[in-house]
Amino acid sequence: MVEVLKSTFEDYLPLIERSIKSADFIAIDTEFTGLVKSAKERTNLFDTSEERYQKLKKSMSQFTISQLGISTFKRQDKNSYSATTFNFYLYPSSFGPVDVRFLVQASSLQFLCKYDFDFNKFVYEGIPYLNKPQQKAMKNHLHSKALFQAKDRSNDIDERVLQALCFQVAEWLVKTEDDQQAILEVTDEEVPELRFVKSFIVRTELRQRFKNVWINVIEGEQRIIQISKRDEKDINSDTTKEDMDKLYESLKGFSRVFKMLKGGVPIIGHNMFLDLLLIYDKFHKPLPDTFEAFKTEIQAILPVIFDTKHICNSARNEHFRDSGLLENSSLQMLYQSLSSLAGQQFVIDTPSVVHTSDRYKDESRPHEAGFDAYMSGFVFLRLSHMLTFLNVNSTDVRPCPFRRYRTEMAPYKNKINIIRGNVNHVCLDGPDPPSFRPELLYVQSKHQSHDLHLMQLLKWFSRHGTVDVQITDSQRALVAASNYRCSKEILKAFQNHKMITVTKYNKWKHSPVIRRYLWAGAILSGGACVLALLSSRKKD
Amino acid sequence: MVEVLKSTFEDYLPLIERSIKSADFIAIDTEFTGLVKSAKERTNLFDTSEERYQKLKKSMSQFTISQLGISTFKRQDKNSYSATTFNFYLYPSSFGPVDVRFLVQASSLQFLCKYDFDFNKFVYEGIPYLNKPQQKAMKNHLHSKALFQAKDRSNDIDERVLQALCFQVAEWLVKTEDDQQAILEVTDEEVPELRFVKSFIVRTELRQRFKNVWINVIEGEQRIIQISKRDEKDINSDTTKEDMDKLYESLKGFSRVFKMLKGGVPIIGHNMFLDLLLIYDKFHKPLPDTFEAFKTEIQAILPVIFDTKHICNSARNEHFRDSGLLENSSLQMLYQSLSSLAGQQFVIDTPSVVHTSDRYKDESRPHEAGFDAYMSGFVFLRLSHMLTFLNVNSTDVRPCPFRRYRTEMAPYKNKINIIRGNVNHVCLDGPDPPSFRPELLYVQSKHQSHDLHLMQLLKWFSRHGTVDVQITDSQRALVAASNYRCSKEILKAFQNHKMITVTKYNKWKHSPVIRRYLWAGAILSGGACVLALLSSRKKD
Repeated sequence: MVEVLKSTFEDYLPLIERSIKSADFIAIDTEFTGLVKSAKERTNLFDTSEERYQKLKKSMSQFTISQLGISTFKRQDKNSYSATTFNFYLYPSSFGPVDVRFLVQASSLQFLCKYDFDFNKFVYEGIPYLNKPQQKAMKNHLHSKALFQAKDRSNDIDERVLQALCFQVAEWLVKTEDDQQAILEVTDEEVPELRFVKSFIVRTELRQRFKNVWINVIEGEQRIIQISKRDEKDINSDTTKEDMDKLYESLKGFSRVFKMLKGGVPIIGHNMFLDLLLIYDKFHKPLPDTFEAFKTEIQAILPVIFDTKHICNSARNEHFRDSGLLENSSLQMLYQSLSSLAGQQFVIDTPSVVHTSDRYKDESRPHEAGFDAYMSGFVFLRLSHMLTFLNVNSTDVRPCPFRRYRTEMAPYKNKINIIRGNVNHVCLDGPDPPSFRPELLYVQSKHQSHDLHLMQLLKWFSRHGTVDVQITDSQRALVAASNYRCSKEILKAFQNHKMITVTKYNKWKHSPVIRRYLWAGAILSGGACVLALLSSRKKD
Repeated sequence: MVEVLKSTFEDYLPLIERSIKSADFIAIDTEFTGLVKSAKERTNLFDTSEERYQKLKKSMSQFTISQLGISTFKRQDKNSYSATTFNFYLYPSSFGPVDVRFLVQASSLQFLCKYDFDFNKFVYEGIPYLNKPQQKAMKNHLHSKALFQAKDRSNDIDERVLQALCFQVAEWLVKTEDDQQAILEVTDEEVPELRFVKSFIVRTELRQRFKNVWINVIEGEQRIIQISKRDEKDINSDTTKEDMDKLYESLKGFSRVFKMLKGGVPIIGHNMFLDLLLIYDKFHKPLPDTFEAFKTEIQAILPVIFDTKHICNSARNEHFRDSGLLENSSLQMLYQSLSSLAGQQFVIDTPSVVHTSDRYKDESRPHEAGFDAYMSGFVFLRLSHMLTFLNVNSTDVRPCPFRRYRTEMAPYKNKINIIRGNVNHVCLDGPDPPSFRPELLYVQSKHQSHDLHLMQLLKWFSRHGTVDVQITDSQRALVAASNYRCSKEILKAFQNHKMITVTKYNKWKHSPVIRRYLWAGAILSGGACVLALLSSRKKD
C-alpha cells in the first residue's frame, strides 16, 4: 500500500496513472465524515429506489470524503494478479472562490477512531479536489487576477508574511545596488510562515512590487525563492502563467485521479451506493435532481461497475447455500471466508493475488480505505473465479484471462446493493427490479382512548423480524416488514389482539390521506408523521 | 497552562473548580470549526444588532467549539496576580439519543493548522458536553434502559466485543464451577476493543446475562473488570445506579465546568460576541429567536462580562490617543503592547501576573484557546489599572484590591464589540447604542444600457475607505460606508461621474421597494439582490 498525501501527491501521480491505465479492474472505497444528515434522511424499508437516492443525495452532498482507497488489479502471469493499492487522504478546498463547508456526524468520526484514523493527516495533509463547477470558478478566479485585488486577499494571502518578505527583498536590493550577479535566496525554513503562501502568489506579488528583478522558485522538500538583478530581457521571460497552471493543477488535486478512472475498466466496490454518490458529487458534478439523471450520467463516466455485496447476496442463495462461504456479506467476513483454505479450494486453480508493496502483506487494516478497496477487489476476483467455473467439470477448469471473468460476471454488472430498502438493489443501466418486499401492513388502534406509540409497536413487531414502523396519526400506523415470513407472522400473532388490528394495507380502503402522509412524511417534520427506524451501519 | 483532555478531565476537575471559585476574574476564549455558514450569513456594515445576531445564530448553531481556554486570575499579594490557565479540547457527544452533526468550514481548520492545532486530540480526546435539552434527553434515555433494547444497541454497543466478553465469562464460570473464591480479571489491554465500551454498559450487560456473579469495575489508566462468584447477598448490592450516574456525569462533561462559571464573577473575552453565542448554544440552551431574549438569558447566567476589544476601542480615542499603546486592537498586538516596558510603565505600580504552571511562561501560543484566554485576561488587568489611575496623581497611585478596578470599569461592563456592523458594540444589559455610521448612499446608473456591477462599484468606492455594497437591481445599489469621512469623499468624488449618480439615501424618495429588497435581501437568494462584502477574520 502506498499512502498518498498532499505533500507527496505530485510525486506519486505517474505511478498512480500507470497502475490505473494498465489495470484489469480497479477497486475503490471511501471513508467519510457522516452517514445521515438528520432523522428525516434515515433510510428504511419503505424507501423506493428514487426515495433512497433523494435521501442519500441530501446527506452525501453535505458530508465529505476523508479517505479514499484505490486498489488496481492486473493479471501478471498465468494464474496470479498483482494488486497495487493507494490510500489517499483528502480534504476539501479552501482557496479563492471555493471554501467548502462540510458536515460531520460526531459518531462517524468516533467510528473511525476505532480504526486509528489520523485526523491530522486528514486536515494537514489531505489532497484537495474540485468538481467541475468548482474547477470553472477557480479557473475564472485565477485568470481574473482577483487574487491580487484587495477584496479577496485576506483569505488566501497572509499579508504580514508577504510584507516581511518584500521588506527583506527591498533591503537586499539597496545593499546590492551595483551587483548584477548577486542572488538572494529565501527558504521556507528561514521564514516558516511562508510555507502557507503558494508560489504563484509569492512570485506574482514580488513581480508587481519590484519591476526589475528576476524571480525563480525552486520547489522541493524545502522551497527556495531566488531573487536577482538580471538583464531586462531575462526579466521578460514571464513564468507567471506556468506558475498559475501549476497552482490550478494542484488545486484540482485528486479530481485528476478521478478523471483517470473514466473509460470502461471495471470499477469494483462493496455496498458502494454511497461511495458512488460521494465521488460523483465531490469530483464530477453536484448530484442531479433525479435518480434517472444520476444513472445516465454515472453510466457515461463509469460504464462498468460491480458491487461485491450485491454479487454475494444474489449468488449465495442460488449457488452457494451449502458451502457456507457467503453466509456473512460484510466485507471483512467475506474476505476472511474467501481467503481461507475452503474459499481458496472451492474451485481449483483460483488465481493468487500478490501485493506490489509491503504494508498490507501481513497486516489487516479494516476501514482504512485502501485496505477495504483491496479486500473488495480480492473478493471480486474470488467470486468471479467461483462463478465462472461453477458448472464446469473440475478437469476443465483452467487459468483464464480476465476478459472471461468479465463476460461471465455480466449478469451482475451495474447492479448496486441497497440496504434495508423497498428493493435490494438498483440497476444503473436499466430499470430497477420490482420490490421483493411483502405488502405494507396497516395498524389501527381498537380504542379511541388508546393512542399508538412507536416504541410499543416496534417492540411488538420486531420480535418477528426486521420491521420499520411509521405512525401516520395517533390511531393509525404502517409497517414495512423485511420479508414475507415476518409479515405473515405478524398478521397471525395480532389476529385477536386486544389493542390493535393489523391487516394488509389496501391503498383504496385505507384512505388516500394515509398515502399522502406516507410520501409526504419527510416534509411534515414535527407534525403528526413520525418515522422510526433501526439504525444500520453502511458496511453491513 | 494545563491541557485538559477526555482522559484527564475527571482528575483535573477539582483543580478547575478551586481555580474558578477563588478567581477575581476569569478570561475565556474559544476556537471553532467555522465562521460563516454561507454567503447569506456574511456580516456587513448594513447589519443592525438584531440582524447581526440572527446571522451569527444561524452560523454558530451549526459550527462547534474545538478548543476552549479558561484563564483564572486571582490577586495573590499586594501587587501581583496569579493566572491559572486551562486549555480544553472539546468534541460533541455521540451517545444514545444525542449524535451531533456539526459544520466545518474548510478554511477555518486550515487556519488552525497555522497554529499547530492537534485534530487527533480534538476527535480522540475531546471532552463531550451537553446543553440542557440534550441533558434531559440523555437522562431519559439512561433511565428508560433503552440502551439495552435491540433498537438502539448498534450505535453505542459493539455487539461483537460484548459477545466475546460474555463468551469468555461463560467459559470461565464452567471451569471454576466450585471455586467461590476465584476471580476473573479482564483488562482493556487484553481486549483492546473493550475500551470503547462504557463501564455502565459492560456491567449492565454482564448482570443481565449472568445472574449469579459479582462484578466490579476498577477504573484507572487501564480499566479492570473483575468477575467472581460470591454470596447472593453480595450480589444484591447493586451498583448499576452508581455506574449510570457516573456515565451521565461523564457525558455532561464540560457542561459541568460551564455551570461553575455562573454566578457573577467577571467573565473576560476579546471580541467575544461569537464566543458568547457558542458557549450559550453548546453548554446552556439552543440560541433563542430574538437578540432581546438572548440578552435576558445570558444576563441571568453571566451577569458581568467585559470585552477587551471594546474597552480598547472606546478608551483609545478618549484617553490614549497619544500614547500609541492601543493603536492595534488585535489581541496579540494589544498583549505585546501592554506587556512592553512602555505598557507596564504607563501608570506606575501596575500589578504583575505570575503563571501557576510552566507552559506559557516563556512561550507565546497565539490561537491556542488557553493562551488567547490568558492574553485577554492580562490585557483586561492592564487596562483596568491604566483606566483606574488615569486621572490620579502618580503620587496617589497604589496597589488596590480588584473590587476597585471592578468599580472603575463599570462603564465598560456588558458591552460587546461588533466588527463591521451598523453599530460598533452591543449592550447586554440595556438598549444598544444608536448607529454611529453615516447614512447609506444610493447609487443609480445614468444610462439604461449600463448595468451596475458589484466588483466595479467596490473598486470605485473602496478607494475612499471601507464600504459594503448591495446591488438592489441592475440599475441601483446601496452603499454602507464605515465612517463619515469616507461617505463624504465618495459623494464628492462621484459628483459629476459619467456613469453613475451617488446621493444620500432617502427612504421616501428612493422607493419603499428598495427597502424591501434591502431587508429581504437574505431571503432573495439567486434573485436580483446580491450582497457583497469584504471578508473579515473574527479576531481582528
